[in-house]
Formats: sequence, structure tokens, C-alpha cells
Amino acid sequence: MTAPDPERAPGFEAALFTDLYELTMLRAYHAEGLTARAAFSLYVRDLPPERNFLIAAGLEDVLDYLERLAFSAEALEHLRSLPQFDDAFVNWLARLRFTGDVHAIPEGTPVFAGEPLLEVEAPIAEAQLVETYLLNQITFQTLIASKGARVVAVAGGKPVIDFGTRRTHGTDAALKAARALFLAGFEATSNVEAGRLYDIPVMGTMAHSYVQAHDDELDAFREFSRLYPGSVLLVDTYDTEQGVRHAIRVAGERRDSFTLGAVRLDSGDLLAHAVRARELLDEAGLQDISIVASGGLDEHRIAELECAGAPINSYAVGTRVGTSADTPLLESVYKLVAYRGTGRSKRSEGKATLPGRKQVFRRAVMPGGEFEGDVIAAADESLEGEPLLQPVMLGGRRLQRARPLLRAVRSRTAAEIARLPVRLRALEPASPPYPVTLSERLSALGERRA
Amino acid sequence: MTAPDPERAPGFEAALFTDLYELTMLRAYHAEGLTARAAFSLYVRDLPPERNFLIAAGLEDVLDYLERLAFSAEALEHLRSLPQFDDAFVNWLARLRFTGDVHAIPEGTPVFAGEPLLEVEAPIAEAQLVETYLLNQITFQTLIASKGARVVAVAGGKPVIDFGTRRTHGTDAALKAARALFLAGFEATSNVEAGRLYDIPVMGTMAHSYVQAHDDELDAFREFSRLYPGSVLLVDTYDTEQGVRHAIRVAGERRDSFTLGAVRLDSGDLLAHAVRARELLDEAGLQDISIVASGGLDEHRIAELECAGAPINSYAVGTRVGTSADTPLLESVYKLVAYRGTGRSKRSEGKATLPGRKQVFRRAVMPGGEFEGDVIAAADESLEGEPLLQPVMLGGRRLQRARPLLRAVRSRTAAEIARLPVRLRALEPASPPYPVTLSERLSALGERRA
Repeated sequence: MTAPDPERAPGFEAALFTDLYELTMLRAYHAEGLTARAAFSLYVRDLPPERNFLIAAGLEDVLDYLERLAFSAEALEHLRSLPQFDDAFVNWLARLRFTGDVHAIPEGTPVFAGEPLLEVEAPIAEAQLVETYLLNQITFQTLIASKGARVVAVAGGKPVIDFGTRRTHGTDAALKAARALFLAGFEATSNVEAGRLYDIPVMGTMAHSYVQAHDDELDAFREFSRLYPGSVLLVDTYDTEQGVRHAIRVAGERRDSFTLGAVRLDSGDLLAHAVRARELLDEAGLQDISIVASGGLDEHRIAELECAGAPINSYAVGTRVGTSADTPLLESVYKLVAYRGTGRSKRSEGKATLPGRKQVFRRAVMPGGEFEGDVIAAADESLEGEPLLQPVMLGGRRLQRARPLLRAVRSRTAAEIARLPVRLRALEPASPPYPVTLSERLSALGERRA
Repeated sequence: MTAPDPERAPGFEAALFTDLYELTMLRAYHAEGLTARAAFSLYVRDLPPERNFLIAAGLEDVLDYLERLAFSAEALEHLRSLPQFDDAFVNWLARLRFTGDVHAIPEGTPVFAGEPLLEVEAPIAEAQLVETYLLNQITFQTLIASKGARVVAVAGGKPVIDFGTRRTHGTDAALKAARALFLAGFEATSNVEAGRLYDIPVMGTMAHSYVQAHDDELDAFREFSRLYPGSVLLVDTYDTEQGVRHAIRVAGERRDSFTLGAVRLDSGDLLAHAVRARELLDEAGLQDISIVASGGLDEHRIAELECAGAPINSYAVGTRVGTSADTPLLESVYKLVAYRGTGRSKRSEGKATLPGRKQVFRRAVMPGGEFEGDVIAAADESLEGEPLLQPVMLGGRRLQRARPLLRAVRSRTAAEIARLPVRLRALEPASPPYPVTLSERLSALGERRA
């Protein structure tokens, strides 16, 4: 046995990014002739206590995956080597594509516990196989967009920048977090590849190592601001106040207010340092030079700084937001709700499900006004309010070839969040929580099964 | 402006997976003629209170990345489009490769706060550029291997299986978590692609949806165990005790003890259900059918079940382990410690660093015996104990072409963990913590700078 040669495995076989049981179940469905259409519903069972709402995200990646789903020759060869699979099944898999329908709540929409973020209807094998990837992407991206919305809500309109890449959970997380945070209202990311892939503005300052590589801080600041007019100087490598004085000196030497954009504080008492830096900058007549703060920030720390009136102009946030550190998981599930046209449900303790495809109707106090409550209903009910689930894929094809521009989704997200009752946008648990009820028909179904 | 076309960006440009500031600093180093060799040290500043030790992981991916680092034509074209970079710099980047040296603590070794997991020595631009990817991979993989070691420690030798893929943070996290958990002593993963890439055993059971797709549970169990002798039946879709009875009936019908391997419990009171399932199975003479438990498990929940003597034979763990939910981050840093042969340090409040490359010496009470303490020293010191950092790459080339087999690393990891003082392997904070001190020379340096 030799270790895998990375040259032979440069990529990642998306069709094999699945739990083994999906494939063993597929072989069983195939062997038993269970080929009818099934409907699955993806939703979050309960909101974490730290969240008053979630922001739906991840749908675009899911649709890409479904459109391209196919087992490569290499993937099929691998499956043939596993004891669970026979040739007949693997040959059948070779022809499998996703031919189903998807209804989904658009990215950037506030969602609540029990509301389907998406529903898949397809021949059961196709709908089953995709469970793992769909949960993986929707769960994480929704988690991070939801965290990001909290940060934006407390930053009082000041720009917030994603610096999380180095401690997010792997490369995919870093890229998807940059996208989810931009969608949630962040201004930019530090991740150059995320900027390229998603057309997100990229921003950066300098590292302590740059300052240290010079014989003194003043030299480092001079060189950097010469090369990058309007740049941000990191002032806390040795002594923060001295660093601010050095930045001021460089700004003065250049006699050009455009040589320096901002100073960045990354350690210690950010409030005290920001107050002192502002004083020194103002005394030097540098009112137009702004202050960027970073270092272990999250929505709670930013709220404290804002309440204290910290003279900080923008926030760079990283690890605690990119990992959603206070609650790094959502209890998301992907459940069979219908097979061969008949509603299906499970009754596992504490994990029961309601049968059939769903729709969510959201009512507002007036058109375009504040949201006042949601009703989860059967898909074929027609109730008051806006139906949130929309068809996005039919017969395995996206309904619009042009995907929505991320910047347009971002604007819509901000508008949607602004329509939430104000208590939901606070950091503390909303009391009462946002009202989500079941339609009369679903309630009756639930009671009949209880 | 149009949204990015995924067909044009199928892959991921590893060289662009970096914070923008790395590239702006590179251009500054280049413009200033700062081309001398620099040394950077990657370590975790403090252990989370929930961890008594960490398990080093992620080095193999880092070495792959360093060996292949190069900017593709597409990556260079993208950089040309950004305002920060001029043609001269981009043309210089086109020729950049990693030509440096790496010293590292082998994967699977227990490590502590302040101990370098790896050190990079290279022309400063090369060493700086790789910061983001190195931190991203080492931080996450070490985080998860460390969490996994705790789970293995409390499972009392029972097999533990990774079912985390669906709620880990993206695809890279799922794959790397499967590997890190296997390294830490897990038995298998559910992720088929991780199994392929890393040669890890894959395991799976069945989902509730499979049971629901049949008209009754008994049919589902019959079909599945016919197709997969020795399989695991999920018994809690409707009523757990009834599910166990159905499993027993199927085992009896087949009159062949090999038709059924285990029953899986996934909800409710796992202890009570396991006790009852064991009774029913034993009464039916099915002592050889085992019980798998899953559902929100982590090391604390498993410890409770083990303390209560739950008749559970193996544990499938998911989200809480794959996200390291109790502490989803490590305070990892990558700091410049030398430039042009001279030690460099920073004095930021609470974030000071010690200059120069390091070595860690680990003493044992006897050869092969329990570890009794570590000393962090300068790289050129020679102290008592085993030096943990070893050269793994010189001049940009791995020292061994054959990478270590993951199964060999896994065995060595278990042996290393077994040598830790027993108080460190408990879940509660070790008192006293493992002793890590600075060598006299480093202490003197630290005091001189304080």
C-alpha cells in the first residue's frame, strides 16, 4: 500500500464528496426498483440561542453542483474498488445526472427555524445522493452570512472588512466566508482569490513582519507610503503611541495629505489607543486620516467600542466571525417529505418531521414594510403574504442562465434585514422571537401524527 | 460587470489564496531590494482552556503547497488588473517559486503553547507570501486532530467514526477533518472522497429517508440486509424499541447471524435505548449484534455514556467534533523571528515575540517513557531531551520523496499520546498543566526586551 500521490489526485471528485450511506442507499433503491420521485426539504431545526434570524446563503454553489453532477472515470474506478458496489450499479451510476427540480428561498433572505431553505424533487436516487454536499454548503454559508449580518448591524454603518482567511476551517471555508460576509454587508475581503472568484473588493494593510524587516519603524512607514499612497500603516509593532507619531511624521514629510489613508490598531486596549491616536492625528491637523481597528473582534466587542464612542472608522474582523465562534454550527437537516406523491414523515424523539413539500408565507405590516410573521404551509396552499420559496431549477437546469450579481444580492439582503422588527437586529435574544406558525392544514397533520 | 463564470474558474488558484497584504508587502520588499533570507515561526500563542495539549497536523498539505507554489497565467492576469500592482512586479512574481527550508514538528506529535509547529527560512518574499495558506491549513488540521484525540481518549478503545461532513465548514474542512480525525485515532470516515484521497476506511449505515421511502420499516430492513450482509440498521425512524424488534425479526428470518452487523441509535435517551436494545438483542440470542450510537455526540457526552456503562459498541460523531464546537479556533500566528541573520521581535501588548529560530526539547522520565516537560530554546542550543523540530524541506524540496503513510503516522500518534502524563488525557483542565519553559538563553532575551 502506498500513500496517495497528489499528482494523481489533483482535484476533488465532487460526486464522491458524499457520505458512504448515500451510495449504499442508492444501490439499494436501484436494486429494489425504487425509482419514483421523492421530495426532500432542507431546513434548520432550531435557531441557536445566539441568533434571532438566519440569512440564507449557499444556493449558487448548490445549483452549480447539481448542474454538473456526474461521476468521472476516476470516481467510478474508485467505487468499483469498494466492497459495497458491484459493476451493474457502478455502470448505472456512470449515467446518473441530476434531472430534478429545486425550489428555494433566495440568498440573502432572512429565514427562521423550520423554514425550508430549499426543497429538491427528483427521482429518489438523485435527490438522496446530493444530501451531503447540499447540507455542507448551505449550512456553512448560512451560518457565516448570519454571523456577518450581526456584525454589520452593530457597526453603525462603518465599513467592516473580512480578514478571517488564516483561521477559517480550510480553503473552501475562507472563500465561501468571504462571499457570505460580503453578501451580509461587509465592504471587502483580504482574500485575493475570493476577490477574483466572486468579484469582491479586496483590502489589506501591512503585517508586523514588514515593519520588523526594516531597521526601524519609521523607515518601514516611509517606504510603504511612498509605494502605496493612501495606504494603512500598522502602528502597534513596538509601541502604539510611538507608532502613531511615526505615521504622523511620515505624513508630514510627504507634505501631501494623500500619502496616508489610515493607521491600524491591532492589540491592547483598542478604545484607549483609538482615542489617543485620534488626538495625536487631530493635533497634527490630520483629521482626514482614519483609524482601522482589528484583533479578536466580533459583534459584541464592536458593540462595546461603538457604545463607548470609540473614534474608529472601520473594523477588520477575522477568526471569531469566519468561524462563527460563538455558535459554529446550525442544526440543519435534509429530510424526505414525500415519495411517489405521498407525504412521508419520521417520528424520532425530538426530531419529528412534517410530511409533504412546503411553502413559507411572509406577511408585512404594509407593502414593503416591516415583516410581522411567517406561516409555514403545504406547498399547494395559498395564504396571505409573500411566498418565499421560488422555483430555481427545473429538470436539472437553472431557470435563469445569468446568475444574480452578488452586489445585487447584497443590496437586496440589506433591504430585507432592514424590514425585520428592530428587536431581531439587536444582539440579545429577541423577546418575543419572530412569529413563525404552521398553517392550519400542517398543524392538523402534526397533531394527527403526535 | 458580469458575475464570474464558474466555467472560467473551475479551480482554485492556490497562489492567490492569500491575504492582499502579503502581495503588497512583496511588492514593497521587491521595490526596496529587501531580498535577504527571513525566518518565520508558526505557533499557537495560548492553548484554549478546553485543551490540555494539541496534536500537530497539516504539514503534508503545507509541503505540497510549497513544492508547487507558482502563479499561473490566469493568476498573473488577475493581479495585473488590481491597482496595487505594476507590470514589473507581476513579471517578477511569474518567476517566483518557494526555494526555502522548512523545519517542523512531525504530524501527530503533541504540542503546546509557544512551541513552533514549523519554521520557514527563505528569501523574505517567499517566506512572507505563504503565511496565509500555512496558517489556514495548520490551524484547522491541528484544531481537529486535537479535538479528535480527546474523543478517542474517552471512548475506552471502542471504535469512533467520523460522520461530520455535512456540517463541517465547507468541502476542504470535511476532507481535512476526516484525515485529521483518522490520524488522531478514529477508525473510519463516512466521506467517500476522503477515503479515496487519504486511503482511510469508509463506513456508513442508512438514513431515515431510506426507511421512510418504504411502506414499512420491516420491508426496508429486509431489503437492506439482503443486499448488504452484516449491515447496520437505523432503528429510530418511528419508534426505537419497535425498530429494534424489527431488526431482530429480520435477523431471525434470515437464520444467518451474518445478515445483521449492528443497530444504530440516533435520537432520544441513548443510554436508555442502548440498555433496552441490548436486552432485546440478548433475549433473542443475538449477542453478536452490536450497537452504534450517534446524534450530537462529543467527548463529554461519550464520557457520560461510558461512565454509565452504556452497552454501546461504537460511536459515530459528527458536527460537534468536525467543527470543534467548544473551541472552533486556535490563536495561531506566523511571526518573523529573523531577517538577514539577525533576530527580530515585536513587542505589541500581549502579543510579544522572541527573536530567532527555535528548537523544542522534550524530556522523558526514561527512554520511551512518560514525557515530563519541554524546553523551548534557540535553534542552535543543544539541551537534554529529544529535539522535536526536524528538517523536512531544504531548498524548496521535500527531504523524503515518499511521504509518510497516514496509517504509520496514526500509530505513532497513539504512541505519543500514550506517553503524555495521564492528567493531560482527562477532559478537565490538567493541574498542573504540562511544563513548558524557556531555555536560559531565551529567558534572558525575553527579560532584556521586557
